[in-house]
Amino acid sequence: MTKKIILDCDPGHDDAVAMMIAHGNPEIDLLAVTTVAANQTLTKVTRNALAVATMIGMHDVPIAAGCSRPLIEEIKVAADIHGESGLDGVVLPKPTVELEKIHAVDLIIDLIMSHPAKTITLVPTGALTNIAMAARKEPKIIDRVKEVVLMGGGYHEANASAVAEFNIKFDPEAAKIVFNAGWQVTMVGLDLTHQALATPDIVSEIKAIHTETSAFVVDLLAFFRDMYKKGQNFDAPPVHDPCAVAYVIDPTVMTTKKVPVDIELNGTLTRGMTVADFSYPIPEDCQTSVAVKLDHAKFWGLVEDALRTIG
Amino acid sequence: MTKKIILDCDPGHDDAVAMMIAHGNPEIDLLAVTTVAANQTLTKVTRNALAVATMIGMHDVPIAAGCSRPLIEEIKVAADIHGESGLDGVVLPKPTVELEKIHAVDLIIDLIMSHPAKTITLVPTGALTNIAMAARKEPKIIDRVKEVVLMGGGYHEANASAVAEFNIKFDPEAAKIVFNAGWQVTMVGLDLTHQALATPDIVSEIKAIHTETSAFVVDLLAFFRDMYKKGQNFDAPPVHDPCAVAYVIDPTVMTTKKVPVDIELNGTLTRGMTVADFSYPIPEDCQTSVAVKLDHAKFWGLVEDALRTIG
Amino acid sequence: MTKKIILDCDPGHDDAVAMMIAHGNPEIDLLAVTTVAANQTLTKVTRNALAVATMIGMHDVPIAAGCSRPLIEEIKVAADIHGESGLDGVVLPKPTVELEKIHAVDLIIDLIMSHPAKTITLVPTGALTNIAMAARKEPKIIDRVKEVVLMGGGYHEANASAVAEFNIKFDPEAAKIVFNAGWQVTMVGLDLTHQALATPDIVSEIKAIHTETSAFVVDLLAFFRDMYKKGQNFDAPPVHDPCAVAYVIDPTVMTTKKVPVDIELNGTLTRGMTVADFSYPIPEDCQTSVAVKLDHAKFWGLVEDALRTIG
Amino acid sequence: MTKKIILDCDPGHDDAVAMMIAHGNPEIDLLAVTTVAANQTLTKVTRNALAVATMIGMHDVPIAAGCSRPLIEEIKVAADIHGESGLDGVVLPKPTVELEKIHAVDLIIDLIMSHPAKTITLVPTGALTNIAMAARKEPKIIDRVKEVVLMGGGYHEANASAVAEFNIKFDPEAAKIVFNAGWQVTMVGLDLTHQALATPDIVSEIKAIHTETSAFVVDLLAFFRDMYKKGQNFDAPPVHDPCAVAYVIDPTVMTTKKVPVDIELNGTLTRGMTVADFSYPIPEDCQTSVAVKLDHAKFWGLVEDALRTIG
Repeated sequence: MTKKIILDCDPGHDDAVAMMIAHGNPEIDLLAVTTVAANQTLTKVTRNALAVATMIGMHDVPIAAGCSRPLIEEIKVAADIHGESGLDGVVLPKPTVELEKIHAVDLIIDLIMSHPAKTITLVPTGALTNIAMAARKEPKIIDRVKEVVLMGGGYHEANASAVAEFNIKFDPEAAKIVFNAGWQVTMVGLDLTHQALATPDIVSEIKAIHTETSAFVVDLLAFFRDMYKKGQNFDAPPVHDPCAVAYVIDPTVMTTKKVPVDIELNGTLTRGMTVADFSYPIPEDCQTSVAVKLDHAKFWGLVEDALRTIG
Repeated sequence: MTKKIILDCDPGHDDAVAMMIAHGNPEIDLLAVTTVAANQTLTKVTRNALAVATMIGMHDVPIAAGCSRPLIEEIKVAADIHGESGLDGVVLPKPTVELEKIHAVDLIIDLIMSHPAKTITLVPTGALTNIAMAARKEPKIIDRVKEVVLMGGGYHEANASAVAEFNIKFDPEAAKIVFNAGWQVTMVGLDLTHQALATPDIVSEIKAIHTETSAFVVDLLAFFRDMYKKGQNFDAPPVHDPCAVAYVIDPTVMTTKKVPVDIELNGTLTRGMTVADFSYPIPEDCQTSVAVKLDHAKFWGLVEDALRTIG
Repeated sequence: MTKKIILDCDPGHDDAVAMMIAHGNPEIDLLAVTTVAANQTLTKVTRNALAVATMIGMHDVPIAAGCSRPLIEEIKVAADIHGESGLDGVVLPKPTVELEKIHAVDLIIDLIMSHPAKTITLVPTGALTNIAMAARKEPKIIDRVKEVVLMGGGYHEANASAVAEFNIKFDPEAAKIVFNAGWQVTMVGLDLTHQALATPDIVSEIKAIHTETSAFVVDLLAFFRDMYKKGQNFDAPPVHDPCAVAYVIDPTVMTTKKVPVDIELNGTLTRGMTVADFSYPIPEDCQTSVAVKLDHAKFWGLVEDALRTIG
Repeated sequence: MTKKIILDCDPGHDDAVAMMIAHGNPEIDLLAVTTVAANQTLTKVTRNALAVATMIGMHDVPIAAGCSRPLIEEIKVAADIHGESGLDGVVLPKPTVELEKIHAVDLIIDLIMSHPAKTITLVPTGALTNIAMAARKEPKIIDRVKEVVLMGGGYHEANASAVAEFNIKFDPEAAKIVFNAGWQVTMVGLDLTHQALATPDIVSEIKAIHTETSAFVVDLLAFFRDMYKKGQNFDAPPVHDPCAVAYVIDPTVMTTKKVPVDIELNGTLTRGMTVADFSYPIPEDCQTSVAVKLDHAKFWGLVEDALRTIG
């Protein structure tokens, strides 16, 4: 049985790969791609989503634009990582896929309310604004969602302050809403995604696939590598977002640990931190898990298989 | 020319009077009544709105239900002031007015986007959740709204903590969004509404109108008086919400002062405070005003006229 | 019976007047003057204290220097109000009074511990760093002090942010300690001191005293008037600090109200606010009072009498 | 050349061992032991310090009592770990060592000011109240201290909340002062001390020393083991405080890493967290280091050698 997901994203280099793995893996039934401002403005990430969909031949999946800014914070995009376009370093096709007229928040609500309960997994890989808005506009979705598997946060790793990760810091209030809504949340955070490095070996493997899309991915990873070297001194870039999709495809691609996670809203140094409480004992009814250890080979295998399927 | 308003409320004793003045005053074109959880749960305040509409013969105004809880805070209703039903102390008719299917947030957006720019005044008299959600879902409404005249907050007066007012404290993040959106905001706060006292003289005048609705208002004010005596040691109850509508009808019903107002989200003692900065000089481009001094006779004259018009 | 006080101050124009009224009034037994950084650096305010003591012939009162910075905040002096010297606009005599070797914190502790319990009133008119340090170093002083009558804070008035007063904002943590120590605190805040205006009539009366000190005060008030006109648009300057001493001399110089007061440490907009909770009912065991209404004539009468006594 | 230290502590089981290693190691010149409330009340930890000094024959080292509560927080001792006495599980001798009359804060200041600059290392192993008070009372000590090597905090490990360690959480404002004072701070935190486990092998080795003090340590570790098993599910107890002393004796007992560390004061979930900022690049002028990896054998070797020396 396929796994129905809604991918809520902000392409973004790694979001583009997340779209590819979601589209190319046969176990995933991608109900919609929704966009949200974070890596770049809503206009740019939406155009990028349409262009990536066009490139990979994803014509049957509705794409809808969502919120153009976080709830409380001012908008501060990640041009230092993704460039001015949000997908710098690659040549994007002119989109032929069209944007839905419906707002992302409403598309998310409509899909969840019109499908059987507990069949849809939400996979947010950007700021959590759309998901939070949907949960507040139609609280009934909370019990109907199967689970939320999100890329964001980190229990020990951080990239947007000493202790906060970009997606969560971008909209901490939205994250607070999502982590405390009551549904199951698996946080695929930096602790995990900093293991998902596109090493030279991996890049060579992707190059060897020899398709237009794989070449596109190679270019994309080259740009990403340079940005990560310059900004954060990584030797190989971490490819965050597809990890969340990979976990939905095959949970054995990583180990996870049940632990309460909440969002700090008020700290002077810690606003936007995903505070995981590992203190003993972990409560039985804990609704949140964190990703801990990646099976690097299995993960990249899934990415490469998807690229081959896309052709 | 009439003034188009959307009344976003949580009836609530004083909200009921706000509906009456909005419906009964010929200068107001009431485009919609939308409801939001605050004084009581969304279910209860929505039923109350429908019942009040039924009683006052308001059949042509769409009523839509909105958000059932604040963005971040847990829901804590004001049963100590409005009772278990949200409108204790009166006998409500069985509603014959029907609820719209559309969500309040969408109705607000649709009305603003389909009317000429700068023609609609938003009049929120409950928590600001619906208005904040609308501004974040469709940011274009911000420039199209004429102004926001809200009941809430207080620069020196408070009723929900040492320094916070109930509507703002109920959803501080929503208030933060609304006060900083960029549109003009007039805060009709407790500083003003604590002057709008339903004194025995006023109650006698209302009683003398001798209609079903005026009798209903007399009962409602009697209950409100008892609650305010018991809880806050007021000799006569302040009737908050119609003040905001009265200001739209006739700005001379109160004096206002331009002053920057922002919402404190982080204080241990001050979360939800509407922080007005009276320090010299007031910036020229200040978008917020606070209501200062009520013309008590003129205000109650407007209320009584509306009750007479309703019949 | 005279009233024993320790004046903990940061001269400062109004502190200088506070020293004069404390020294010149026969009902006050001034045990010590201690200094603390706030209006200006510790070095400057201590030199000013010695110079003022020299000018007014106050040779028998020990003067000790205390803390040179607040507990947590960075030091930010009020040169915009008191000038670079802390007492700009007047010619100060070369000090002949000598500084004690003992630290202000220790002098405060020693005096309180060596006098009978409940005989000494602490009168801080600067930041509360010394007093807080003393309370934490020797907690026994808390029960031995008669009361704390401080100039600082404001329940509605502010001068260092939208809602904070300078002395409290300068060291909010120290204020938190002092207001919650357990002793009686009377807050003579801006609500009161903004009534203590040195109007032209008052200045004429002081001028007519025709002494070196009164001439010094006239110069001092002229500088203060200009600063307050420029910075805060006051027509006449408020002379804050002597109000606290005046209250010790004669409590009928102002009305006060018992009300819980606490310090906000965490607010983004409200850090350093003295949060007074006027909500009904005021707890019986409330240890804090706020000054409300000044008897302007009586207050200035005390100041002028002291100047005449000093000669 | 010996290393002069002042041990500021709150015995406490591991503090007792810290006293022993400081007293028994020939490289340490222990100038004073000062006490502070944290593990238990000031009265209890001071009595414990005197009793431990008595037991180990430490008659020539001044012991002075300091602050009995934190600056802002209410006092909340760690009876769950150290028992009602602060040193439950062992039989203490009646103290024959006498307490100094001087306050710990003044003893710290006096020692630092009377010794050559940069010769004294402060080794706090309890709350940082005394050290912070000393730095604020006499700021000149900051440049004269050689360095501060403290047990407290944790960059990833915590024991007093999801992200805070007990000593820092007990008095976050004091920690803020100490970490930002300007002197070099080495934080020997839980990340390190959770490696300093008193395993059964270690306990056997200590037992084999066969002295009164080693037997005392064995009893002490047995109690500590039970508390840590019950409260935090440790199989062997971490012996925190002597790690800081061990680092002064021989820095090769652990690896450290330069990284900025600051204290979160305002977080709802994170108050008292020692926020280490590992983001690239680490500033050249960083004054703080964190302990990372313990040489377990070398550490326990130092402890055991000291016990043998004490005899």
